[in-house]
Amino acid sequence: MSLSRELAARVVALDPNSFDPDAAKWARNAIADMIGCTLLGAPTDTTDAARMPELYGAGSCLVLGRRERLGMLDAAFVNGTAGHALDYDDTSKSLSGHPTVIIVPGLLALAEMRGASGKDFIDAYIIGVEAATRFARGVNFQHYEKGWHPTATLGIFGAAVAASVLMELSQDEIANAISISASLASGLKANFGTSTKPLHAGIAARNGLFAALMASKGVAGSPVALEHPQGFLEVFNGAGNYNIDRMLTGWAEPLDLLAPGISIKKYPCVYSVHGAIDAAIQLHDGPLGNTAAVTDVLVRMHPRRLLPHVRNPATSALNAKFSLPYAVARGLVNGAVLLDHFEDAALHDPSVTRIMGLIRMEPHDDDANDYGAEVVVTLEDGTVLRQTVAAPLGRGPEAPLPQEMLEAKFIDCARRSLTDDGATKIFGQLMRLDELPTIADLTAAIEAATL
Amino acid sequence: MSLSRELAARVVALDPNSFDPDAAKWARNAIADMIGCTLLGAPTDTTDAARMPELYGAGSCLVLGRRERLGMLDAAFVNGTAGHALDYDDTSKSLSGHPTVIIVPGLLALAEMRGASGKDFIDAYIIGVEAATRFARGVNFQHYEKGWHPTATLGIFGAAVAASVLMELSQDEIANAISISASLASGLKANFGTSTKPLHAGIAARNGLFAALMASKGVAGSPVALEHPQGFLEVFNGAGNYNIDRMLTGWAEPLDLLAPGISIKKYPCVYSVHGAIDAAIQLHDGPLGNTAAVTDVLVRMHPRRLLPHVRNPATSALNAKFSLPYAVARGLVNGAVLLDHFEDAALHDPSVTRIMGLIRMEPHDDDANDYGAEVVVTLEDGTVLRQTVAAPLGRGPEAPLPQEMLEAKFIDCARRSLTDDGATKIFGQLMRLDELPTIADLTAAIEAATL
Repeated sequence: MSLSRELAARVVALDPNSFDPDAAKWARNAIADMIGCTLLGAPTDTTDAARMPELYGAGSCLVLGRRERLGMLDAAFVNGTAGHALDYDDTSKSLSGHPTVIIVPGLLALAEMRGASGKDFIDAYIIGVEAATRFARGVNFQHYEKGWHPTATLGIFGAAVAASVLMELSQDEIANAISISASLASGLKANFGTSTKPLHAGIAARNGLFAALMASKGVAGSPVALEHPQGFLEVFNGAGNYNIDRMLTGWAEPLDLLAPGISIKKYPCVYSVHGAIDAAIQLHDGPLGNTAAVTDVLVRMHPRRLLPHVRNPATSALNAKFSLPYAVARGLVNGAVLLDHFEDAALHDPSVTRIMGLIRMEPHDDDANDYGAEVVVTLEDGTVLRQTVAAPLGRGPEAPLPQEMLEAKFIDCARRSLTDDGATKIFGQLMRLDELPTIADLTAAIEAATL
Repeated sequence: MSLSRELAARVVALDPNSFDPDAAKWARNAIADMIGCTLLGAPTDTTDAARMPELYGAGSCLVLGRRERLGMLDAAFVNGTAGHALDYDDTSKSLSGHPTVIIVPGLLALAEMRGASGKDFIDAYIIGVEAATRFARGVNFQHYEKGWHPTATLGIFGAAVAASVLMELSQDEIANAISISASLASGLKANFGTSTKPLHAGIAARNGLFAALMASKGVAGSPVALEHPQGFLEVFNGAGNYNIDRMLTGWAEPLDLLAPGISIKKYPCVYSVHGAIDAAIQLHDGPLGNTAAVTDVLVRMHPRRLLPHVRNPATSALNAKFSLPYAVARGLVNGAVLLDHFEDAALHDPSVTRIMGLIRMEPHDDDANDYGAEVVVTLEDGTVLRQTVAAPLGRGPEAPLPQEMLEAKFIDCARRSLTDDGATKIFGQLMRLDELPTIADLTAAIEAATL
């Protein structure tokens, strides 16, 4: 059997009724967090550009935070772009990227069109994550390291599978959706740090849905579009840089959403600095108090996280999101790292720039602790304060974000587009998503609450 | 200066008023041929799938052959898919692919929206071809041989530049359109021979226009999206497999459209057999007359053209388009190779299948004659008739398709979607395209003539 068909066979063999109930809980949280991030990203310049009014005709699918409705593909694109506009959305270690922002936007538009229920939506989401992450196991980390943006180039397969499941496509149609996706996958890490990066998410969300829709209309891809000498694996990864067995084994044993699981970001900046921020905040809230007497700050992180662009001090609102010195300084000074801290005006706060200038960085070599961090602060009187964090809050099932923090993040994001009452009400609906008769009820409520 | 900016500088330095007047003639012919191919491809299953009515809202840009109007991006996608549906559109040796089908659909939609003139359209087209083919010189043939579909993965840069020129974008904006395109380029040769291949053209046409529109709205790509270690050149081609100097030198000295130029297909089948068909038709029209007395046919072609899939006799309408024995038999029997010959019913014509069974094939070793062919026919009485063709009719400036053949092809294609009178009238308009006050006049005339 061809690889597309083998993968499709594993998709159709999954039985949502046999999934661990924790999967639905993680799905609800991830979907809620995604919708929050999309409502946050809706009123940004990038989303404005993506939503050029002259480009799209009217349709039936809600653009979150915008009180307007577009066709399925256009809504998936604009919502996907908005969802990634501030890089605050969840991440997956298996994917080396952001899984939910590629899967949810297409699924949301499709579910509206089909009158799908909350339960159907959750099941399709879980299967989409499983497909994207199993696929990713076969090509990572080589795929990431080569320069592809896996959020887009691998996420598309999850989006195509999720949409296929919601449409109840056959195994052959799902195989075609996968093969078509191989010809649509795109996105380069060279464009990280620019406004093109959120477009990657929107485009991949759109293209995954598109591949499934084309397959549903009888368009065929090559059965061997993945393993052909001029197919996805050889062309994107190259000979010797992938492992088909890893793609095919272990589906739902357990679900990737449960182990290793996804990470929900607590801070609106690059995920790799989250552990160091946690440590800084624990110092602020504990022995440090204020930073007036601080003379030296040392941050130790795994070298895989301590990349060159992370070492830079902040000079703009955009690069502040990737700046370890800025994030740690904010944590030490404010005991919090908030959306407002990434506004241009906030970058010139003198107490923060002073601490940012003191920060030194060192790699550690503990591979078992690759998302952990240590922050060591020295005071004028020679006192040394140390704080170690093994896994940042929000990191998968090891350190799940407490429910009240998830809600606080959602409200903080959603209130950029919704009334405060509306944000609270929508969060409540999302926490009961599996009981919702139709997703259209949810989007109608979001539309009604839009500022 | 970054490579995107270097390329953009070359784009803005081009002055259409200094172009050789022959360039406009080639542009008119290529655009006319493209519109013919699109009208031919409009009533096909693939275009039906691409044009799912529930996907797109109404807009202002014509879907050729369909009496309906969509938004710019959607019209570019559907017209691009239709234009490549039957693989009858022009080819470029520099691109190793089909240049016009990626550039014209977006330009057509954009020109309608902007009230652009025929002259503006032609100038933008010429510059788009120049950009795509200069870019391609830097990455081919390694790019093609690796498994990318250059029509899509390189054509997108031409489409983005052409749209940028029509919008009169600045050098920086054009650089951004190029950098954004690097993150949108996609399409694998593994999907050749499936209905996904025409989608590649539609998607790339859409994405090139999209990149230019995003750049016009202020979206930025990385200035080094091409030459970055995780940028287009390293990721798509790999170290040592590209040459930046070849990308940057020789722009418009002369224009690629003039040398080596493009090839307009005379026959609705794979380009590599065109020389052999020409020879067969010359025998039919000359010494042979009818084929009743033929006992043996030998075809000699360059081994680069005489690939395994070309040697097969025709057994289906799809593989007939790649069958040298079928094409040569049709040429000898009918003195013509027409669209109707690739309908299923035509494959069983006994006089053709008899000749098809007689055909032997041999490689020749004349590298200077790599698109040429020789056909040697032996008759019952021992007479041997030979015909050699150095370059097939339609092959660039060496053997341009005579104007009456271009018109006959256009009419044959266009009458699948237009009235016969309408097809003739539209061809006349296209031959005077540089005098047309607005492209909207052309599309209105096409719409009015649609069956």
